[in-house]
Amino acid sequence: MSNKYTRRSFLENITTATLGAMGAGSLLFSSHSSSEPDTLGNELPEGATILFQGDSITDAGRDKDNANPNDPWALGQGYAFLAAAALRHSMAAKNLQCYNKGISGNKVFQLSDRWQQDCLALEPDVLSILIGVNDFWHALNDYDGTVEVYEKDFRALLKRTKEQLPDVQLIIGEPFVVEEGTAVDDRWFPEFPLYQKVARQIAEGFDTAFIPYQQVFDSASEEMEPTYWTADGVHPTMAGAELMAQAWLETFRRL
Amino acid sequence: MSNKYTRRSFLENITTATLGAMGAGSLLFSSHSSSEPDTLGNELPEGATILFQGDSITDAGRDKDNANPNDPWALGQGYAFLAAAALRHSMAAKNLQCYNKGISGNKVFQLSDRWQQDCLALEPDVLSILIGVNDFWHALNDYDGTVEVYEKDFRALLKRTKEQLPDVQLIIGEPFVVEEGTAVDDRWFPEFPLYQKVARQIAEGFDTAFIPYQQVFDSASEEMEPTYWTADGVHPTMAGAELMAQAWLETFRRL
Repeated sequence: MSNKYTRRSFLENITTATLGAMGAGSLLFSSHSSSEPDTLGNELPEGATILFQGDSITDAGRDKDNANPNDPWALGQGYAFLAAAALRHSMAAKNLQCYNKGISGNKVFQLSDRWQQDCLALEPDVLSILIGVNDFWHALNDYDGTVEVYEKDFRALLKRTKEQLPDVQLIIGEPFVVEEGTAVDDRWFPEFPLYQKVARQIAEGFDTAFIPYQQVFDSASEEMEPTYWTADGVHPTMAGAELMAQAWLETFRRL
Repeated sequence: MSNKYTRRSFLENITTATLGAMGAGSLLFSSHSSSEPDTLGNELPEGATILFQGDSITDAGRDKDNANPNDPWALGQGYAFLAAAALRHSMAAKNLQCYNKGISGNKVFQLSDRWQQDCLALEPDVLSILIGVNDFWHALNDYDGTVEVYEKDFRALLKRTKEQLPDVQLIIGEPFVVEEGTAVDDRWFPEFPLYQKVARQIAEGFDTAFIPYQQVFDSASEEMEPTYWTADGVHPTMAGAELMAQAWLETFRRL
């Protein structure tokens, strides 16, 4: 049994069990015009804060010296910018305040270290977290974390978040990998899917929204080769960033 | 009669006469999912080249040392990146090659100076040009151009383009200004609308697609204050960039 087969079987099992209506069909691009802002996030107060947190995929080269909300350079070149631009356009009347505080290379414990200033102090109304690929990836080299550490740290982070921000609406993104990518090898399987399983279980346990990015990329890879969406298997291309943004917006709309 | 009134009257006249079905109602966000690529630009060959040309609004801080197509950093932080990301996602199977060659500060004659390498050599299938605000704006200071120079240079540029690229599909964007912006004063009216009129007449004369950005911004400003869409009146905010990208995509879809 190849690693690829193992991973596919694992994914089939978890997707069948838990994806439900959130399959590929529901990930179609949704339309929200400026004239119908109330179809999207209509429960949010005016001026609500949207915070994107995570690692390099979220960071996407943002200017970390720029702390302004809704600033393209502060939001980077990835899915956070694309999603924020769509929100600011389609829900203009809400005047949402969008921040990206992702930092390249981060693992969960590094989010924890900077959580007070980079999350809690911003008092987000919606908090999106995508974290986990480095918790696994760096362990292939000099990081001594395990999937148990990832789970323990991630649960503690969310517990702390819910205590400090009891009304925050949480979106957890599934860490993903495209095995055809140049940075990915056999060592990723079947280990990495265990991190994905943890992220999903945590989302269920904390009753958060969940974006099944692995399914998003797998479905897109049926249309175009996997490396169209991410060249190295970890970081999305522009097309992959838009793919993520659309899945994010679809999830946001359902909050 | 105030300058504002003069400008509004002018716009009412030209929009009534020529906008037709391209009013605000048709600028609603359109939906194109990955599963229906043929609803958008279905006449384009696979691998077709899309080129964005213009000034700072198009440039939007792109990395000019990066000549790669479809690269977020080469595409900048503005409407060109947002539109290109949407195209690469919604029309993935077409594998479009998207370039941004806008340069901050450019007037038409500066496009002409670099047209061979920054346009003709790329042999675009679709060429989008947004130029004109500096042709007027810089003339308030040390540039000696006039609206006649703008028209003459712009016509010559398009004639040269059509001769070299007879099959190119052209999109001309209307130069726009938001008079509430910090960089805009009374000197802009009624002179600047003359440049807008020229751009529209040239688009008609060369039978190109035309994006009525002034109407796009004016309509959006009925929902949120004008400076939500552009702070200085010339350069769009993130929301303004998405507004432009959606108008651009709507126009592209109708090519």
